[in-house]
Amino acid sequence: MLKDLIKKNRSYRRFYQEKQVSKEVLKELIDLARLSASARNVQPLKYILVNKPETNAKIFKYLTWAGYLTDWHGPEEGERPSAYIIMLNDTNISSNYFSDDGICSQSILLGAVEQGLGGCIIGSIERIELQKELKIPLQYKIIQVIALGFPKEEVVIEDLKDNNFKYWRDSKQVHHVPKRSLNELIINFEET
Amino acid sequence: MLKDLIKKNRSYRRFYQEKQVSKEVLKELIDLARLSASARNVQPLKYILVNKPETNAKIFKYLTWAGYLTDWHGPEEGERPSAYIIMLNDTNISSNYFSDDGICSQSILLGAVEQGLGGCIIGSIERIELQKELKIPLQYKIIQVIALGFPKEEVVIEDLKDNNFKYWRDSKQVHHVPKRSLNELIINFEET
Repeated sequence: MLKDLIKKNRSYRRFYQEKQVSKEVLKELIDLARLSASARNVQPLKYILVNKPETNAKIFKYLTWAGYLTDWHGPEEGERPSAYIIMLNDTNISSNYFSDDGICSQSILLGAVEQGLGGCIIGSIERIELQKELKIPLQYKIIQVIALGFPKEEVVIEDLKDNNFKYWRDSKQVHHVPKRSLNELIINFEET
Repeated sequence: MLKDLIKKNRSYRRFYQEKQVSKEVLKELIDLARLSASARNVQPLKYILVNKPETNAKIFKYLTWAGYLTDWHGPEEGERPSAYIIMLNDTNISSNYFSDDGICSQSILLGAVEQGLGGCIIGSIERIELQKELKIPLQYKIIQVIALGFPKEEVVIEDLKDNNFKYWRDSKQVHHVPKRSLNELIINFEET
């Protein structure tokens, strides 16, 4: 059931780094994005697939992890992602990608979870530096980086209270994510 | 398998209008969005659920359908959506929702397909008029409208040629959607 997949699809930030993710698997995930909806069907998103340790290390330098965990500066060596998907906007096709980014990253991450993987969408990126480091042509604009690997942490959903939406870690390093209630998300509307 | 669900999740624009979609089902779809990732976990999206014919008719007036089909002005009476989800940005929480819109609409639509429903994300909306008509308070900004119902049309994926990404309908009213190839989406990168 989709709901189980969605529940399991948490933002994972620590991984069994030694466990490789093959290019074949990464391509299957892109195929899920490829078959997903695109606004006006323009399909202006492109992808760079990375699973080599040296390139992973290059990418890692330019990412910021879990902003609310101020005492934690990202996963230690040994717990880092073993693959990355860099989502790009091909501006030669169109600079306007509407909701395509989220649609495609959700397809990719649900597909990853189905394969026993997990990941995290990272939007806090030193974009200019990463683009230079990987020699990505300027026609491509980095939208987001999806970190992937075999998750090595527990993430639990809990009820959000007093509008405190910041995730937190307990002393056992379990990651807690407060979610708003269904009632809070649905606007009471005259017809209801 | 997720891939089957993604393949089946086409943008449907004609429906069995007489087949109702219950509020309970709409709420289950919002629960899928609720449990999906949110940038910085802020969760600034809210939803209006509509399944009453009179309100459906009000919403329909402000939507533009399938821009490339210039001879077709949207589904006829009898083939219109039997439900809508209006996705809102609650600007009192945050005006920045990053990729949350696409992530949540993908969860909603995959969930719909799993239930035998189908839908279409509509971004071409007379927003100000719709907001007034439904008396939606100004703290909420309309992001998109998801039309839902039991699909009454066939949609097929085909290979995109010569960068011609416009969808089209054949004489049997089958809707054809050209998709870029996997090779086109993956940027050849020095490590590959």
